[in-house]
Amino acid sequence: MQALVYNGPRQKSLEDRPKPAIQLPGDAVVRITKTTICGTDLHILKGDVPTCKPGTILGHEGVGVIDSVGPGVATFKPGDRVLISCITACGRCDFCRKGMYSHCTTGGWILGNRIDGTQAAFVRIPYADTSLYPIPDGADEEALVMLSDILPTGFECGVLNGKVQPGSSVAIVGSGPIGLAALLTAQLYSPAEIIMIDLDDNRLAVGKRFGATATVNSGKGDATAQVMKLTGGRGVDTAIEAVGIPATFELCAEIVAPGGTIANVGVHGVKADLHLEKLWSHNITITTRLVDTVSTPMLLKTVQSKRIDASQLITHHFKLADILQAYDTFGKAADTKALKVIIEA
Amino acid sequence: MQALVYNGPRQKSLEDRPKPAIQLPGDAVVRITKTTICGTDLHILKGDVPTCKPGTILGHEGVGVIDSVGPGVATFKPGDRVLISCITACGRCDFCRKGMYSHCTTGGWILGNRIDGTQAAFVRIPYADTSLYPIPDGADEEALVMLSDILPTGFECGVLNGKVQPGSSVAIVGSGPIGLAALLTAQLYSPAEIIMIDLDDNRLAVGKRFGATATVNSGKGDATAQVMKLTGGRGVDTAIEAVGIPATFELCAEIVAPGGTIANVGVHGVKADLHLEKLWSHNITITTRLVDTVSTPMLLKTVQSKRIDASQLITHHFKLADILQAYDTFGKAADTKALKVIIEA
Amino acid sequence: MQALVYNGPRQKSLEDRPKPAIQLPGDAVVRITKTTICGTDLHILKGDVPTCKPGTILGHEGVGVIDSVGPGVATFKPGDRVLISCITACGRCDFCRKGMYSHCTTGGWILGNRIDGTQAAFVRIPYADTSLYPIPDGADEEALVMLSDILPTGFECGVLNGKVQPGSSVAIVGSGPIGLAALLTAQLYSPAEIIMIDLDDNRLAVGKRFGATATVNSGKGDATAQVMKLTGGRGVDTAIEAVGIPATFELCAEIVAPGGTIANVGVHGVKADLHLEKLWSHNITITTRLVDTVSTPMLLKTVQSKRIDASQLITHHFKLADILQAYDTFGKAADTKALKVIIEA
Amino acid sequence: MQALVYNGPRQKSLEDRPKPAIQLPGDAVVRITKTTICGTDLHILKGDVPTCKPGTILGHEGVGVIDSVGPGVATFKPGDRVLISCITACGRCDFCRKGMYSHCTTGGWILGNRIDGTQAAFVRIPYADTSLYPIPDGADEEALVMLSDILPTGFECGVLNGKVQPGSSVAIVGSGPIGLAALLTAQLYSPAEIIMIDLDDNRLAVGKRFGATATVNSGKGDATAQVMKLTGGRGVDTAIEAVGIPATFELCAEIVAPGGTIANVGVHGVKADLHLEKLWSHNITITTRLVDTVSTPMLLKTVQSKRIDASQLITHHFKLADILQAYDTFGKAADTKALKVIIEA
Repeated sequence: MQALVYNGPRQKSLEDRPKPAIQLPGDAVVRITKTTICGTDLHILKGDVPTCKPGTILGHEGVGVIDSVGPGVATFKPGDRVLISCITACGRCDFCRKGMYSHCTTGGWILGNRIDGTQAAFVRIPYADTSLYPIPDGADEEALVMLSDILPTGFECGVLNGKVQPGSSVAIVGSGPIGLAALLTAQLYSPAEIIMIDLDDNRLAVGKRFGATATVNSGKGDATAQVMKLTGGRGVDTAIEAVGIPATFELCAEIVAPGGTIANVGVHGVKADLHLEKLWSHNITITTRLVDTVSTPMLLKTVQSKRIDASQLITHHFKLADILQAYDTFGKAADTKALKVIIEA
Repeated sequence: MQALVYNGPRQKSLEDRPKPAIQLPGDAVVRITKTTICGTDLHILKGDVPTCKPGTILGHEGVGVIDSVGPGVATFKPGDRVLISCITACGRCDFCRKGMYSHCTTGGWILGNRIDGTQAAFVRIPYADTSLYPIPDGADEEALVMLSDILPTGFECGVLNGKVQPGSSVAIVGSGPIGLAALLTAQLYSPAEIIMIDLDDNRLAVGKRFGATATVNSGKGDATAQVMKLTGGRGVDTAIEAVGIPATFELCAEIVAPGGTIANVGVHGVKADLHLEKLWSHNITITTRLVDTVSTPMLLKTVQSKRIDASQLITHHFKLADILQAYDTFGKAADTKALKVIIEA
Repeated sequence: MQALVYNGPRQKSLEDRPKPAIQLPGDAVVRITKTTICGTDLHILKGDVPTCKPGTILGHEGVGVIDSVGPGVATFKPGDRVLISCITACGRCDFCRKGMYSHCTTGGWILGNRIDGTQAAFVRIPYADTSLYPIPDGADEEALVMLSDILPTGFECGVLNGKVQPGSSVAIVGSGPIGLAALLTAQLYSPAEIIMIDLDDNRLAVGKRFGATATVNSGKGDATAQVMKLTGGRGVDTAIEAVGIPATFELCAEIVAPGGTIANVGVHGVKADLHLEKLWSHNITITTRLVDTVSTPMLLKTVQSKRIDASQLITHHFKLADILQAYDTFGKAADTKALKVIIEA
Repeated sequence: MQALVYNGPRQKSLEDRPKPAIQLPGDAVVRITKTTICGTDLHILKGDVPTCKPGTILGHEGVGVIDSVGPGVATFKPGDRVLISCITACGRCDFCRKGMYSHCTTGGWILGNRIDGTQAAFVRIPYADTSLYPIPDGADEEALVMLSDILPTGFECGVLNGKVQPGSSVAIVGSGPIGLAALLTAQLYSPAEIIMIDLDDNRLAVGKRFGATATVNSGKGDATAQVMKLTGGRGVDTAIEAVGIPATFELCAEIVAPGGTIANVGVHGVKADLHLEKLWSHNITITTRLVDTVSTPMLLKTVQSKRIDASQLITHHFKLADILQAYDTFGKAADTKALKVIIEA
């Protein structure tokens, strides 16, 4: 089968690999119909993710059809259409029992990282009963690809952790795919204000179209001052960090109101400054989270009931045979204006 | 009347000052019967609190008897015995309506800071209806002095924010009065383990006596390693920072388990490092808080029903005329083993 | 001044009454600009509310302009435009401190009940600082009249108590003004399904226009069976009772899913059956609530940010001089299709 | 093997039955070391539980040693000592994913009901990975038998649902084993008052010994009046119903304070009256629940750390060969003063 393989820093290729087989009783093999590329795949290709060894098939998102199941799988049978979660959950360990699948002691984020992933014709999914979701009849499968990772990440790490509430004020720092996913899902709670902050006017314009009530270009003048002006000097109830560098985290700490929350979504490579000499008395909360995908069933309902239009995030389409071109388009997002690219297998 | 006055950095004196008078309709004047000294008073005397101007009477804790009330006071009348909250709450502004009295737009921590405080024979209390609490008949008034600040601070900033739960594991970094207040109030939620961490073996022994299940002297070997060993390698569900320096905050970040909470109680003077490159995926929560004293009525019930023995925190007694000696004893706590000192006015 | 006076069961008149005066330091007198009639006013006129004595001016909703304030009022001054809460809150008692203003020991629902109300040219408002809300510039004042009672009642008693969540399923039994207020505010949480249940096809059509995803006429066939069919046999996560009779409460108990909530909003005159022999193992929650109006500031923001269009509830307009005609129109809602009527003073 | 078999209403016998075998990949067979009898077993023997067919081995509580496991079991191996949950959870269905194991679509309460139970030398446990718990070294196994059902039932259905909090007031109606389990676990949250209500002075004396702050014999005078007197006329924050008849539920509705919660634990056979004409405006919550046993790991920690002394509930010991005598003793609790009886297999 065709598969996109990581061959070490800055090296990837489309290769022919054997179709995966059932290894454990709880496994399923899924024939991929649609997958996509994540910013994390680009991190791996930079060599930033040491758990991912050369030779691994990339990809942790996608939808497909059950090809075969192990004897321990109760929920799915061949032919069932399924949504793949980026997080693999055993459903049994202490973390899974608490709904913290991200830290499953034998699962977590392993697809396209510690084991072969979804950018291929077939993928093996461990703990299939608790790591796949049935696709309802009549669903828009392309839109559901957004439910493998990006929508639950924006929602759980940004919106839920950030305690977005009706009438509240929200700032989202970073208007890339993940910030936009937070923007779309934040509206499930009807905040009064959502301020989108980025350096790229195009991405801010997309944010406006997706429902932001105001935008701030942080490259043009003092972003903190602009947010304070927009909020009558109060700052925001929720500041969502969706970039992953010290400057954007520290901006969140400047614009959060007393009593507010900073919800970190970004993947960070270095430490940031925490100004406790100011913040100790500000009654704030800071949260971090690797997505658990516990909200996937709920998000599926909101997509099905059209409370969220997830398909807005899709800008480009490619065949699996052209996935190198898809990486090129996704990697040059500033030029191509790519958000999420769909790859049909 | 006698009053302990801040005269600028490192300068204090016991002076004769005029008895305060009602200034606004909601004011009460309280005759102090018992007050105490807080670590924050020592901060002021170092010159670290610029909002406190020379000439201010110090003190934000105490119990007393209503001497007079303004025409707008509905709840209290002369002769009523009252507990003074360290936080003054108007009860009307947006922050007060949310129970965030610490950020009351015209109140907050003003006693012994922006206005004259309680280390005197009398004190004026603004917004008396919402800043004083009636003392039940038969109460131990000395114990109630612990309810002005230290118990609600340990409880709200440490225990509540730290989400201490039955069966959970807790580490408290700092076994001074405030850490011990967190220790006493943490037990209201029956955690399975409470590990006390300090440099001073005497204070750790006090912690053990007050209910800690284990102690770690962080000056003797690797504190992180010791906590990991005590928790089977998992780390703690709640890490309470009760010192206020970067090293202790950063220790909390090392010992908190995935899914856990760091509750900052300490007053910090400089920034700390936040290792987001490790923490971004650890699903942790960090909280800061200036005490709101919303839990005072509840804590009063737990003290009255003997679920907490607050009097354990009291080590020394002085007369108001001897308050300079009380400051001396409290300031040299390592030698005197002082926790809280009661000053009788 | 003109005022609508309750003169005992089935007796009301438009009378000339003296303008109210400040009685206590915290009072304000408000010149009414717009008020409305509530279903509760009709209950009083039936003689069902013994706390309301003959001679009382009715009405507990409205907006107006501050005419005068007592010396204890800090937030408002003459000329300020204000929204009147149907609930009077002292802000000081134990219930108010917990945000349960409905049970304020000296307030609660007293306007147009225990003291003169808002269906008059002027009204005296006790505890003005905590019972009035400033009207933002540019606000639609007519729409804000819906914030005195009906929107917070639908939201707090129905939506908040009912724990409406993104993706969840909701049934609202009763499509009158209060059920429609629950319908409008439920959408702040983006449930996937909202089923409106009533006997009146016109009111169901209004429900559909206001955002219901399905409607059930409970007079035509088995309502329980229809709801079960709409929910794939599961029942609803939230059942909101907005009528106030045993049959509608018991319908809620039949359609609520295991793990779900019945949120009672209706005012009941007699007991209902609670089928514990079935429900004891269903893991359900039943809530009751007299509105606290703690959500008023939040709802004001959602109305201002156009997340809710409260003006949809207004069907008719009258002058205060024509209030008897307004009562007539509102009382015959089945014929007149009246929801809320605005009365301009 | 020996087994206690239900042979239809009022008929039970100790029989020789074949040792159970693994049927499905997720099954384990457990050799029982200690089991007990539950009030529910008596209900079955009265013929009140139609899901339990004649020929079924009774019992849903116990500890034992793994005898054999199916190929899908990952967590346990032969020889492991395990605690058996009364609730069988697949860990995969929508209800299990929400932590509502009681409503597991293929599990729930099936042991000693729909399938053979634990009052035997061996028992087959479906979904062993998510329905058994490892026993820590050094644990008191007898005490852990209390964790199969009675402690999680008292805790989840009574204490958690009842929102018992530090400083709050609690009444528990029914001082039998389940009410006493609620009493023991309520103290994990340090309420200020726990009032035990029963008709039997002996059981009330046990309640006092287990930590009740007051007792009320509801057969001697007006129970409501006594509770109101004990609570200064306010009523209780939490009323736990641990009997299961209309009179006790209705007593809870009379003694619950505005803003309080009635947590139903009792198994009811008939409907009760719900006085909505009084309660609609009382801001109360009523909950029902079949235990989910999600709190078992936490309760295990509190028993291990000696925050709860579960062994206090054990009054009698029998051998499995004498289980008919054990039933006799347990069934005549008023005479024998039996609470829980341990049966050694």
